[in-house]
Amino acid sequence: MCELLGMSANVPTDICFSFTGLMQRGGRTGPHRDGWGIAFYEGRGARSFHDPQPSCESEIAALVQRYSIKSRIVISHIRRANRGRVCLENTHPFGRELWGRHWMFAHNGELKGIKRRTTEFYTPIGSTDSEHAFCWLLDNIRRRFPLAPRDPKTLWRFIAGLAEELNALGIFNFLLSDSRYLYAHCSTRLAWLTRRAPFGEAHLQDADMTVDFVRETSPNDVVTVIATQPLTVNEVWQVMAPGELVVFEGGELAWQALNAQPPM
Amino acid sequence: MCELLGMSANVPTDICFSFTGLMQRGGRTGPHRDGWGIAFYEGRGARSFHDPQPSCESEIAALVQRYSIKSRIVISHIRRANRGRVCLENTHPFGRELWGRHWMFAHNGELKGIKRRTTEFYTPIGSTDSEHAFCWLLDNIRRRFPLAPRDPKTLWRFIAGLAEELNALGIFNFLLSDSRYLYAHCSTRLAWLTRRAPFGEAHLQDADMTVDFVRETSPNDVVTVIATQPLTVNEVWQVMAPGELVVFEGGELAWQALNAQPPM
Repeated sequence: MCELLGMSANVPTDICFSFTGLMQRGGRTGPHRDGWGIAFYEGRGARSFHDPQPSCESEIAALVQRYSIKSRIVISHIRRANRGRVCLENTHPFGRELWGRHWMFAHNGELKGIKRRTTEFYTPIGSTDSEHAFCWLLDNIRRRFPLAPRDPKTLWRFIAGLAEELNALGIFNFLLSDSRYLYAHCSTRLAWLTRRAPFGEAHLQDADMTVDFVRETSPNDVVTVIATQPLTVNEVWQVMAPGELVVFEGGELAWQALNAQPPM
Repeated sequence: MCELLGMSANVPTDICFSFTGLMQRGGRTGPHRDGWGIAFYEGRGARSFHDPQPSCESEIAALVQRYSIKSRIVISHIRRANRGRVCLENTHPFGRELWGRHWMFAHNGELKGIKRRTTEFYTPIGSTDSEHAFCWLLDNIRRRFPLAPRDPKTLWRFIAGLAEELNALGIFNFLLSDSRYLYAHCSTRLAWLTRRAPFGEAHLQDADMTVDFVRETSPNDVVTVIATQPLTVNEVWQVMAPGELVVFEGGELAWQALNAQPPM
């Protein structure tokens, strides 16, 4: 199993605090020693860092912690290999372009038989079931919507249906973004938390570190953090239900599907 | 105009020395203050760093110089914006997947009317003529070869024809790779150099720095460096002719087209 971390915010926000907590699980407090990756959206572009090394020893992880990249959407992943060898092309998050938008995807779980599903537009570069699932998702979205649909809810419902279909193959916790929305699907474990004024203090579960968000934020900031397990000990996290899909825009919950609809 | 830097090698090699020279041109010895980017292939995967900041002041550039990432193929670019505003999605190199391979592209020049050419499979994310040209190239390759051709020369000839066609729209110096081959097309300025045993010393043109490759390499290493202008003062660089396309594999020149063929 792997650790996922996502962020959606209404202003460019750094994720150093949450990332520091997550990184500890990459070989120090967790067994996730097989690489890590993080993608930061900046406008329509995405900047990503991938490292097949354990995150707690990674020089690039140290840079990401030190050098506070501010972003409205972040997707991060620490890997424990269950399928596919440990190498750069098997390191999440994976990226592809659709409709001139940069889509990124990270997955926690395992999907049996996913590789028997053929894809037309997108072909996996590495050998993970996760990248194959991502290619299959985008392939289906692209076939159904050659152009981006006007009403985003049409797309959200369709993605919820695809997620439910793949979920039947195993475990399918994932984070997905198209640079505007952040999708989080819970198969077994995923929790989220929205921070907004009045801000308080938060204390990390995996490192002896406290941050006072009053000093770090301005009153209008809205920041949602999504993680496999709650990262802080003194805040109330929303634990997602199996099969639940949530969509965030600018830090706010935009849509929620408890029982996913089948694909149209 | 922008600066291009490419490398093809038969063993994973670090590019710190050449990169140090190139970075000086990003605002110190050159006028290329509008961002930079670099992609390192590792096997089938690619790791890329992009920064809309001037390279000579960039923290990420400092990391890349310090932290010697070893790679067989590298593509790097320092930008002086002529088309498209300065932002992450307009920063080279650009990447797309075709045939399950990670293709990367960086361009120096300007192409008039390129945006009138429509694309089917690949859509630009940013607003540069360069990314549009890249999408058009891959679109054409994909339409002509839904699967990778068995004989790579068939593909090389086709790419040479496409390069010639776009070259007619303006200036089209570019570096392109599919993780196996490195393509370099000269429209106005591009030079390359292959280093192999017996290795000597090289002295950078843009920084007071000398490297002794005897100490840095092993006798079987073959490393080709391609740059807009020669980076060293005491080595003999092959200056490419306008319209010339070269293909490198494992540091060795694999193919060369002086007069490109029209597309089949």
